[in-house]
Amino acid sequence: MQVKAIKIATSNPADVSQLTRYMDDGIIDPAEVICIIGKTEGNGGRNDFTRDLAMLAFESLFSEKLGISRQEIVDRIIFSLSGGCEGVVSPHIVVFSKSGEPAKEKNKEKRLAVGTGFTRAFAPNEIGRMAQVEETARVIMQIVSDLKVDSNSDVHFIQMKGAIPKFTYEEGLAAAKAGKPIRSDMIFSRGASALAAALALGEVDAAQLNDDIICNDWNLFSSTASCSAKPGLERTEIMVMANSPYWDGDLMIEHGILKDMLDTKSIIDVLAKLKINCDLQLTPKQAEKIVGVFAKSEADPRGTIHGRRATMLTDDDISDTRYSRCVLGAVLSSVLYDPAIYISTRAEHHGPAGGGTLAIIAKQDK
Amino acid sequence: MQVKAIKIATSNPADVSQLTRYMDDGIIDPAEVICIIGKTEGNGGRNDFTRDLAMLAFESLFSEKLGISRQEIVDRIIFSLSGGCEGVVSPHIVVFSKSGEPAKEKNKEKRLAVGTGFTRAFAPNEIGRMAQVEETARVIMQIVSDLKVDSNSDVHFIQMKGAIPKFTYEEGLAAAKAGKPIRSDMIFSRGASALAAALALGEVDAAQLNDDIICNDWNLFSSTASCSAKPGLERTEIMVMANSPYWDGDLMIEHGILKDMLDTKSIIDVLAKLKINCDLQLTPKQAEKIVGVFAKSEADPRGTIHGRRATMLTDDDISDTRYSRCVLGAVLSSVLYDPAIYISTRAEHHGPAGGGTLAIIAKQDK
Amino acid sequence: MQVKAIKIATSNPADVSQLTRYMDDGIIDPAEVICIIGKTEGNGGRNDFTRDLAMLAFESLFSEKLGISRQEIVDRIIFSLSGGCEGVVSPHIVVFSKSGEPAKEKNKEKRLAVGTGFTRAFAPNEIGRMAQVEETARVIMQIVSDLKVDSNSDVHFIQMKGAIPKFTYEEGLAAAKAGKPIRSDMIFSRGASALAAALALGEVDAAQLNDDIICNDWNLFSSTASCSAKPGLERTEIMVMANSPYWDGDLMIEHGILKDMLDTKSIIDVLAKLKINCDLQLTPKQAEKIVGVFAKSEADPRGTIHGRRATMLTDDDISDTRYSRCVLGAVLSSVLYDPAIYISTRAEHHGPAGGGTLAIIAKQDK
Amino acid sequence: MQVKAIKIATSNPADVSQLTRYMDDGIIDPAEVICIIGKTEGNGGRNDFTRDLAMLAFESLFSEKLGISRQEIVDRIIFSLSGGCEGVVSPHIVVFSKSGEPAKEKNKEKRLAVGTGFTRAFAPNEIGRMAQVEETARVIMQIVSDLKVDSNSDVHFIQMKGAIPKFTYEEGLAAAKAGKPIRSDMIFSRGASALAAALALGEVDAAQLNDDIICNDWNLFSSTASCSAKPGLERTEIMVMANSPYWDGDLMIEHGILKDMLDTKSIIDVLAKLKINCDLQLTPKQAEKIVGVFAKSEADPRGTIHGRRATMLTDDDISDTRYSRCVLGAVLSSVLYDPAIYISTRAEHHGPAGGGTLAIIAKQDK
Repeated sequence: MQVKAIKIATSNPADVSQLTRYMDDGIIDPAEVICIIGKTEGNGGRNDFTRDLAMLAFESLFSEKLGISRQEIVDRIIFSLSGGCEGVVSPHIVVFSKSGEPAKEKNKEKRLAVGTGFTRAFAPNEIGRMAQVEETARVIMQIVSDLKVDSNSDVHFIQMKGAIPKFTYEEGLAAAKAGKPIRSDMIFSRGASALAAALALGEVDAAQLNDDIICNDWNLFSSTASCSAKPGLERTEIMVMANSPYWDGDLMIEHGILKDMLDTKSIIDVLAKLKINCDLQLTPKQAEKIVGVFAKSEADPRGTIHGRRATMLTDDDISDTRYSRCVLGAVLSSVLYDPAIYISTRAEHHGPAGGGTLAIIAKQDK
Repeated sequence: MQVKAIKIATSNPADVSQLTRYMDDGIIDPAEVICIIGKTEGNGGRNDFTRDLAMLAFESLFSEKLGISRQEIVDRIIFSLSGGCEGVVSPHIVVFSKSGEPAKEKNKEKRLAVGTGFTRAFAPNEIGRMAQVEETARVIMQIVSDLKVDSNSDVHFIQMKGAIPKFTYEEGLAAAKAGKPIRSDMIFSRGASALAAALALGEVDAAQLNDDIICNDWNLFSSTASCSAKPGLERTEIMVMANSPYWDGDLMIEHGILKDMLDTKSIIDVLAKLKINCDLQLTPKQAEKIVGVFAKSEADPRGTIHGRRATMLTDDDISDTRYSRCVLGAVLSSVLYDPAIYISTRAEHHGPAGGGTLAIIAKQDK
Repeated sequence: MQVKAIKIATSNPADVSQLTRYMDDGIIDPAEVICIIGKTEGNGGRNDFTRDLAMLAFESLFSEKLGISRQEIVDRIIFSLSGGCEGVVSPHIVVFSKSGEPAKEKNKEKRLAVGTGFTRAFAPNEIGRMAQVEETARVIMQIVSDLKVDSNSDVHFIQMKGAIPKFTYEEGLAAAKAGKPIRSDMIFSRGASALAAALALGEVDAAQLNDDIICNDWNLFSSTASCSAKPGLERTEIMVMANSPYWDGDLMIEHGILKDMLDTKSIIDVLAKLKINCDLQLTPKQAEKIVGVFAKSEADPRGTIHGRRATMLTDDDISDTRYSRCVLGAVLSSVLYDPAIYISTRAEHHGPAGGGTLAIIAKQDK
Repeated sequence: MQVKAIKIATSNPADVSQLTRYMDDGIIDPAEVICIIGKTEGNGGRNDFTRDLAMLAFESLFSEKLGISRQEIVDRIIFSLSGGCEGVVSPHIVVFSKSGEPAKEKNKEKRLAVGTGFTRAFAPNEIGRMAQVEETARVIMQIVSDLKVDSNSDVHFIQMKGAIPKFTYEEGLAAAKAGKPIRSDMIFSRGASALAAALALGEVDAAQLNDDIICNDWNLFSSTASCSAKPGLERTEIMVMANSPYWDGDLMIEHGILKDMLDTKSIIDVLAKLKINCDLQLTPKQAEKIVGVFAKSEADPRGTIHGRRATMLTDDDISDTRYSRCVLGAVLSSVLYDPAIYISTRAEHHGPAGGGTLAIIAKQDK
């Protein structure tokens, strides 16, 4: 069994022309596609319709190619589209396909393994609380187990689209009066998802966790999570990427923690683990080895960086989410050469405050 | 004769508290101040009033300390305030003072020398044309000569605030009809100023220049210019920084050309010329040696960087000037550690298309 | 022959749920739909992908309902989607259908008549010049003639999507050198389209027109035009709305010129022509009679309104296009009660400088 | 005793040229100025430095004219500057002066009376709670009493700059743990100030109020309040405007409640109370009678207006505060002719949800 990942530049959010060509040329088999991760050029906020536009285009294409309905496409393939291509961040998608049979015996080299799963549907009052953390961690552990990794340290990237079940105004009021306000929002859903990843991989202990520390104690965090959350979604969608000796192919994934948005050293360290030697900036040839870069950015809540005041958080013209993606996108691109990078903002319990998580997938020489 | 330069972080555009303390403590003598260069946290555009706010605060302070009128302060000290602290770029000022007598003989080491001057008043129809280029180059050459540098290659930074004399609608119409439209705007004024710097230092030949190539042939550019332009200003204000054997102190300046906004290699090269060894990112201790960083940024007009599409130039929500400052500010900060950096946008004939100029002033061991 | 027009509120740019229900319930026959005009909630600029999203949704729906390809849908139905729902302007579409046979004899009452047509393909050097004006006027006159109106004063709304054929950089340079620069851009295409409407209806004389006055002499304008322009479009799409005695139904259209963005008097005058009596603000019941409101807005180039300074044109955070749509949308809604109004910006030769055009379609008692 | 109010257009936030001329010409006596209310052209948010710029210019001017320190100026004159001149809203100031002695007997006509006062300093845990409401109401009642109005219904405008005392992170945490979280923020300070105005004037009963309803039960509101709040301010600044038979001059003030942002009827009603007859839009001559218009705007929290969806609250590119000011400014200007209007956003307990308060000062014929 092996994973193929192909990076495709897009000329607009609905651009599936190159993807279509790859399908027509047999380079990508639509039936093998398991996941598409990409950046579209909206604002990444509530009125960012570039993600919907890309979805409509993908659903139409796959529906036509596979002869099944759009709903079946959405149930079959995980789409993770993040809006916001600030500064140099370049619109693109990475298409993941899976083919072949599981290896019967361990390979010498560990290779990229991808597993997906879903939590059960959550009640609104479970979100942002231990119920969400525990169920999410349970599913992550199940996926990890199915990937047959040697150890948790081989798990490098846990992408989640978190549940935010709807509730009525009256339910909200009643819960608040009962002293347990409903937390079914983006912040708490992302935060609990990230802590679930930390719990599943043993980065935090169950004993350290309770309802009160969620989105409160920033010293507890995951180093592999990349969580978004979607209003109306009832169950959390989870994708785990790891290196497993039972998987084939030529891809490897590694990860690191960014201490802050200017932490180039940690980028270089991740490259080294992927056997890519980088002093300052990759050469174009080296850059071709990299098929996926996934990072989380966040303006430091203390309003400073390297001891200097930053104005991102007090600017009422431009959102700090756009600034932090722009900053980290520029810094990553300055090292990795290729600005086709997936950066997503809001990083509650993703790395330390003001920092974030980083995972990179690269081709390995055979 | 020596130049002192002190970097001061500001808590808002009108913050002169630390500057006042330095004056009260005798660290800065208001009578010796020749120039203040700084970043304020506005949008850098037409409705950026943070520069006016800073000016009003500076004028009031110096007027009070020196007992002269505000107008005299403006005539005496060059203020160069650039709006726009996007991303990590941190609001700050660098205060330059000059003291002592010119050395009678050459020193062994060359040290930072600063000279200032003004062009004659320009007529509107001279702006963006050879008349502006030639007069500006003449004044630059005069200032350079007064600084007694060994050669033009010792000149590293030419900061200008370009003239944009006013003209009436009728004058504009008449000029357009006569086939020689008035160019008295920011773009042409900046472009002609930069070409004047290139001409003065021999980076371009007079034979290569004519009215038509200004803001047209981007292969001709200065590597030391940093030009803005101010509507209503009749003469161009010029400040030249160089290393001269007739100047004392512990400061040195060097410069480089940024090939694009991700060009970390050129930043490291400038540091090396300043005898600061940097692999990837300066240490906090190394960063303390640097008192001034002056860069020009610009979104690549081709809409790409490293071969990938950038969306800066087609985003109608956020100006490309804000994005390019954010990108270059992040990249410079990732190398230099300290995000208190002066970055100004719009770089016509400042380095190659999509690139820019960079000058750094650092303390030298005695 | 009669036109039906139905206003439908949308919950997002891709929302075709109510339109689908109307089709399923037989209220709208997809085969009879000739045009959809609507507002989507983007920024109305270059990176406004809400229009593309709506188009993709419409094309999919009609393609499925009519069993023909998407391209055939686009060739068959005119879609005019304008981004930008600033302030109170509410996202919606107006769906126009045509059914029945032309009346053999004149009716007593004139009713809404709709005709469409296309210019020939334009060469890039024709855009913004008399060639575009003349060909466009020719087609408008042909459409008007086919509608069998009593006189040009029965024509009230000429919606156009103007051609902007592509040209190479080299072609552009050559044309500039030859003294006749290519004007194939949005400004000139819209301006020439509007002057074509004025010429076709006799609002300006051919003798008043030449290449030089286009986008220059703002005293020449159309009172019925509503023009956009689309890069890459080779021919201009034209839709004319008029009242004709040969058409049936219960709809009537009237128009007026807005002298400025606060001109409520002209709104009330248009209502009066539609036999709707309004003192200050329509009642909800009166508002139900109105099925379409189409206006053009523009920030006054003189930077003032009612003698006071406006800051729309010097704000570098928010585009004047967004402000002017917001202002006119609020003023129109304050009179018309219903904020589901089509407002489009950039009004070159559409009404006087700082003003715009306004057309309203209302149901008439039978 | 009489109040003079003069409206002055400004060309930029620091423009005091016309004010200076009025002082030099004896039209305004700087020693008599009690208050300046104005709009500056920033974003009205945290990084709006146009207010600081205007303050610095005013302080300098009055300090020079009166020969006292800036601090004394701030203690002596109430400055209420609101940022945000969206759309047609025109930058301006209204300068209020007070002169003469109190009338010994009642005049036949009631005329504009202005009184000011300050609450005691608040502790952080009093803000947004009954302590703030009660103390603020107490001071308002005292000021009203000093103005010798016939009844509370003669009080029309209560402008407040609310206290937001600072607190440490630890204090905040401790208060939260103790079940009584600190509310010392802009929202709660404004809300409590407005409820204090309602309580002082008898619009709500003390029995209806408690900590829980503040910023919660929007059915309780003031019809005269216009509250802002300033971080770091320890006491609330209050200015009351009323009509009193003991005051002279030619000015009168009236107020009304805007049911929503399109409520032109209520504007016309306020004009009628000022004996200005308006059908649709004032004539320029009528408009000259109006010296001050003070309104509060707010996007309807339900996301609709007149039953239609508005997108103001879900737009992540432009703040709803800017949209609602733009909308109400356009609507008010369409009735009042003159767009030099003071509109301030965020209207907690100021009129009904989605509505706001409106006060107008006009000259009366003698």
